[in-house]
Amino acid sequence: MLKPLSDRVILKMTEAEEKTKSGIILSSGSKEKPQIAEVIEVGPGIDIDGKEVKMVVKKGDKVVINKYAGTEIKYEGEDYIIVRQEDVLAIAE
Amino acid sequence: MLKPLSDRVILKMTEAEEKTKSGIILSSGSKEKPQIAEVIEVGPGIDIDGKEVKMVVKKGDKVVINKYAGTEIKYEGEDYIIVRQEDVLAIAE
Amino acid sequence: MLKPLSDRVILKMTEAEEKTKSGIILSSGSKEKPQIAEVIEVGPGIDIDGKEVKMVVKKGDKVVINKYAGTEIKYEGEDYIIVRQEDVLAIAE
Amino acid sequence: MLKPLSDRVILKMTEAEEKTKSGIILSSGSKEKPQIAEVIEVGPGIDIDGKEVKMVVKKGDKVVINKYAGTEIKYEGEDYIIVRQEDVLAIAE
Amino acid sequence: MLKPLSDRVILKMTEAEEKTKSGIILSSGSKEKPQIAEVIEVGPGIDIDGKEVKMVVKKGDKVVINKYAGTEIKYEGEDYIIVRQEDVLAIAE
Amino acid sequence: MLKPLSDRVILKMTEAEEKTKSGIILSSGSKEKPQIAEVIEVGPGIDIDGKEVKMVVKKGDKVVINKYAGTEIKYEGEDYIIVRQEDVLAIAE
Amino acid sequence: MLKPLSDRVILKMTEAEEKTKSGIILSSGSKEKPQIAEVIEVGPGIDIDGKEVKMVVKKGDKVVINKYAGTEIKYEGEDYIIVRQEDVLAIAE
Repeated sequence: MLKPLSDRVILKMTEAEEKTKSGIILSSGSKEKPQIAEVIEVGPGIDIDGKEVKMVVKKGDKVVINKYAGTEIKYEGEDYIIVRQEDVLAIAE
Repeated sequence: MLKPLSDRVILKMTEAEEKTKSGIILSSGSKEKPQIAEVIEVGPGIDIDGKEVKMVVKKGDKVVINKYAGTEIKYEGEDYIIVRQEDVLAIAE
Repeated sequence: MLKPLSDRVILKMTEAEEKTKSGIILSSGSKEKPQIAEVIEVGPGIDIDGKEVKMVVKKGDKVVINKYAGTEIKYEGEDYIIVRQEDVLAIAE
Repeated sequence: MLKPLSDRVILKMTEAEEKTKSGIILSSGSKEKPQIAEVIEVGPGIDIDGKEVKMVVKKGDKVVINKYAGTEIKYEGEDYIIVRQEDVLAIAE
Repeated sequence: MLKPLSDRVILKMTEAEEKTKSGIILSSGSKEKPQIAEVIEVGPGIDIDGKEVKMVVKKGDKVVINKYAGTEIKYEGEDYIIVRQEDVLAIAE
Repeated sequence: MLKPLSDRVILKMTEAEEKTKSGIILSSGSKEKPQIAEVIEVGPGIDIDGKEVKMVVKKGDKVVINKYAGTEIKYEGEDYIIVRQEDVLAIAE
Repeated sequence: MLKPLSDRVILKMTEAEEKTKSGIILSSGSKEKPQIAEVIEVGPGIDIDGKEVKMVVKKGDKVVINKYAGTEIKYEGEDYIIVRQEDVLAIAE
């Protein structure tokens, strides 16, 4: 398991197309990197310098990120993206 | 529905041409990306670091943004732009 | 009407050549974008973060701006430039 | 007349060659843009944000500036450069 | 031995493929520089300017870093990477 | 005479080769711009914003500067370099 | 002799290959600029602005620096590198 440091969040990109509750096809662009991701792990929210950062995203949240944000990492055969919480633009409800 | 974090605002670009109250054709440039948008959702105005940001734009406002500001996002078949409130230049009344 | 946010100012570029009080031809460069503009609207001078900014330019002022400053916007058939007050270099009296 | 805002100074470039008191030819480079300028107007020294800036240059001073500093402006047929006082490197006495 | 200064951490990149506890092959990309590293030495956590930085990584931790972070150094025939602790994204447990 | 403002120092580059006290030929690179300079004038050490800066270099000091630091200026037929004191790396004794 | 200002350190690059105590050949890369250097002089640790910086490296220390850090200087026939202490990554013991 990966434990993010500081105010970081580990995300797993969701499939490019999936049905939403309302039955509409959700697509984050045909060939573009998807921008909707699921939160897998949330950092402790304590900055390494001691400055506290309030974590407002939770495990399981579907979140929107800028497609150039974060660091891609392959771990135990799975692809993840690690972003700072400030790179999370919105929560999809 | 998308819930913006922090001081972010979710916008929907308006058509490039529409009539204003005064009957004049409003156009934000023929081939350029339109810069007039409608506010769809407004973030809580609380910075993730705890610093409060006063939200002065409201749902339904027509706002002017820099055409390079923000992140484009397709969600449930619709195109949105997510910007920080500081990227909103003016409100069209 | 456009209402600028924060410490922004909405400007309308003046014609490239016009007579000044003293009768001399004012020109802000033959082919260059003019740098003399008239102030159309002035923001509230309250920064979105709550920090107050004193507005020293007033509606009707002729001001000098850097030719690369600000955002051009077409609104109701007219061209405007929206700048932060700190991008106003001088007032022409 | 141009009234500079904040800590700005309006300068008029001096001729590339002129005699100094000691009779030596002053030249700020043969083909390069001259770097010696005369102070025409001095801003109020009050930063727009309320922070006071002490103005140490005075009208009539001959000053040295970095040749890439400031904004060139043509006004009533004359060429001026508007710089922040921090871009004034030295006063020629 | 290398003793890192300040909040720096000395890392040794792990082999690109190794079995994890759960038996799955761990790979940090076939041709890409691996991003999983082992912590060899940890700095004192005292910033040179006297500002204290809490060290949360320990000798022996497997950590994830951005593949462009840090400085590569060859020392006594071995390759190391020296990074600031803020460049450590997550700890692999 | 040139009077530097703020924490600036006016320097005159020394010849590329000169004998030191110990009789060794000093050379700051054959074709490169010399990096050893003599201090001609020292600013008042008072920052324009009122923040005091302690001047540790004195008139007559031989100092080492980064070869890309500062602004070259020709004045009364002589070439000078104006640098901020923080661009002085060391004093040659 | 060169006396560094502020928190600067004067270094002399060591030969690219040398035996360590443990008898292993130390090499900082075959064709690359070596990254191991010996500390020749240490600045007073007092920032020009009056902010004190604690000097933790001492004359004679072997230190590791980023190969792009600092300013190269030839002085009395010898090549040196002047770096800020924050560019020293680790001490080799």
